[in-house]
Amino acid sequence: MKNNKQEFKNGIYKFIRINFHKNFHKEIGMNINKFVTPEIIFGSDAIRQAGDACVRLGARKVLIVSDNGVANAGWLEKVMDLCKESHLPFATFIDVTIDPKDREVEQGCRVFVQHECDAIIGIGGGSVLDVAKAIAILATNGGAISDYEGIDKIKKPLPPMIMIMTTAGSGSEVSQFSIIVDSTRKKKMTIISKTLVPDIAIIDPFTLVTKDSSLTATTGMDVLTHAVEAYVSVAATPLTDVQAKNALTLCAQYLRPSVASKTNKEAKEAMAMASLQAGLAFSNAILGAAHAISHAIGGKFPLPHGEINAILLPYVMDFNFIAAPKRFSDIATCLGIDTRGLTDREAGNAAIQSVKELSSDIGIPTKFKQVGLTEMIDHISQVALEDACMITNPRDMDIEQVKQVLNHVL
Amino acid sequence: MKNNKQEFKNGIYKFIRINFHKNFHKEIGMNINKFVTPEIIFGSDAIRQAGDACVRLGARKVLIVSDNGVANAGWLEKVMDLCKESHLPFATFIDVTIDPKDREVEQGCRVFVQHECDAIIGIGGGSVLDVAKAIAILATNGGAISDYEGIDKIKKPLPPMIMIMTTAGSGSEVSQFSIIVDSTRKKKMTIISKTLVPDIAIIDPFTLVTKDSSLTATTGMDVLTHAVEAYVSVAATPLTDVQAKNALTLCAQYLRPSVASKTNKEAKEAMAMASLQAGLAFSNAILGAAHAISHAIGGKFPLPHGEINAILLPYVMDFNFIAAPKRFSDIATCLGIDTRGLTDREAGNAAIQSVKELSSDIGIPTKFKQVGLTEMIDHISQVALEDACMITNPRDMDIEQVKQVLNHVL
Repeated sequence: MKNNKQEFKNGIYKFIRINFHKNFHKEIGMNINKFVTPEIIFGSDAIRQAGDACVRLGARKVLIVSDNGVANAGWLEKVMDLCKESHLPFATFIDVTIDPKDREVEQGCRVFVQHECDAIIGIGGGSVLDVAKAIAILATNGGAISDYEGIDKIKKPLPPMIMIMTTAGSGSEVSQFSIIVDSTRKKKMTIISKTLVPDIAIIDPFTLVTKDSSLTATTGMDVLTHAVEAYVSVAATPLTDVQAKNALTLCAQYLRPSVASKTNKEAKEAMAMASLQAGLAFSNAILGAAHAISHAIGGKFPLPHGEINAILLPYVMDFNFIAAPKRFSDIATCLGIDTRGLTDREAGNAAIQSVKELSSDIGIPTKFKQVGLTEMIDHISQVALEDACMITNPRDMDIEQVKQVLNHVL
Repeated sequence: MKNNKQEFKNGIYKFIRINFHKNFHKEIGMNINKFVTPEIIFGSDAIRQAGDACVRLGARKVLIVSDNGVANAGWLEKVMDLCKESHLPFATFIDVTIDPKDREVEQGCRVFVQHECDAIIGIGGGSVLDVAKAIAILATNGGAISDYEGIDKIKKPLPPMIMIMTTAGSGSEVSQFSIIVDSTRKKKMTIISKTLVPDIAIIDPFTLVTKDSSLTATTGMDVLTHAVEAYVSVAATPLTDVQAKNALTLCAQYLRPSVASKTNKEAKEAMAMASLQAGLAFSNAILGAAHAISHAIGGKFPLPHGEINAILLPYVMDFNFIAAPKRFSDIATCLGIDTRGLTDREAGNAAIQSVKELSSDIGIPTKFKQVGLTEMIDHISQVALEDACMITNPRDMDIEQVKQVLNHVL
């Protein structure tokens, strides 16, 4: 770890944040907390700053990563126009699917290299941003994306990254995570590294008006799950707690109206902020069993990530309760429950009930109806236990306990 | 603003965050929020990471900036040893005084240049860290430090900066501020630029045990003032609000016990976190009239910055109340006051009373006893109005109103 400064193509330098998790477990025990965020630009029409922001980072040619949905909504063209205004040449890559696969990352990287790009703009939801980050990994580190699964496997600096999120859900625009499906193993790989924190995150609530109500519901429950898991994570700190708590309050107040109406500007802004705050919390506090199990299921079955989380969350909360009773009582308070006079157990139960009601109100099912899931319970439980998110779950979990949670929802 | 990437000596590159405040006023109106933080390393013994962190940023020779108090407490030697362990050559500059002057910055810059340093570690309180930042400005931008007074005057990238704070007060370790006295004009210059946000902030509560009770009291009141002013600032956002509110709660609970005992570890940790959270809040939301007036007074009279703030704060709160009644009621809640059944005005008054009681309990005077201050009231009021912190005060202020606040405390 002598000198990690590396020269990147076209003379762009960037300092890598490596060895950040070097002593991950040890540091939790040592009570050393670390907190990293991108530069954040939030607000209506914030998207207008995309081109200039990219130039400010030293970019000479940028790869814009997106998908068909975002392109059809007009946001891709908007970003292309902004690059033109900033006299910044660009190439595009929009072949990204939901639960994106390793081969999409490889294709995107080829475009990056062919066009001699030196920076990346991602515009879209979690899938797009995760692919944009993964392209950045391969662009400077080479190899296969599966080489980087786990914590802190990225050794070389990444090109400058600007992430513009359009779904208020994944938190990928501020997080150190990228989730990519290994298409051979049919497994969601969790890649965690501080160097995946983008340089600049742009959150423009106005882009959310193009989301349909079902996507608003599932991505909104993803936000809620991020906030709950970050708040009870063993790596939570006061810096992440304050963000997680506000995200919970915003979800409880604004997720229903945001699902109800595409044009409720107040609700869209609030959910964009909730997504951002939950993202800041979980990127630094990491997640827990709901996400670990969700990644295991999502790698095998094409279900919306937020929906899987929403179905699992109440049962994971119930399982985790004894690890942090007071924290679950705090969650109840944030969700708008008057906890005065309640024991922590009563408050925790009320929080669990409140999450179930919210899910139900916005049309999320309570059980998995996916054919074939039941048969794979052993395999999925094993994969979940190996997921990086399980490390920070507040209660130790064995394979029988994962199965017990799954038995509630199958 | 084509390409702001600049080459720095020894081949170290860094991307500058310029034009961040380009449309500062306009952006507030446009509801565009921006949020920048350094990478934060917080916890007991976090100081141990200083050398490695500096190497990780690409440093080849570092200037360590400190002062005699910190050196006598042994912290300077500690950092020197850590650099040796990391095989990182260093030079030192410790001629920093309280309310540091422009000529100290110039001296420090000469040491930086003479020793061909390419990075800066600051270890100390607000004065030391502000000088370390100002040396960084001159090292790459040249000229006189007064050239950079105001908002966004820094045009070239700064060398990598690691700031280790030892006083739990100024928030300089995470902020975009540097306050330097112009010794000719006898004026505190407020320099604000996102590029002054350090690369890495290290906060080690263990370093606080060497502070005496008077310094703990005044720096603690500085923290409280940061939190109050950031929370009611016109540039406040949900991202800064959550940090400011937690800082208020921690100050209300832990400042008294921290003043009472040098060795109360829980209180030291809490106040270190309060300082950090208030710093994150005010660095992004900026401050208000208490700091503007405080800078004007501090430029003329050698009074502790935190003490001046503490004396002014209740009267500035009272003046500002009508700009944001609900916000002052929130402050009361954070300070531990049961606001149920109270009007916002009653709650605001209770908050003001609570601040006065806290000040009194920890031995802060209620009035300025400085000889000569009364005669300078016109001049000080005028200087205060021109301070950059006045821009974000929630209530417009004219010179007569500044004088009215001062008349309460003279």
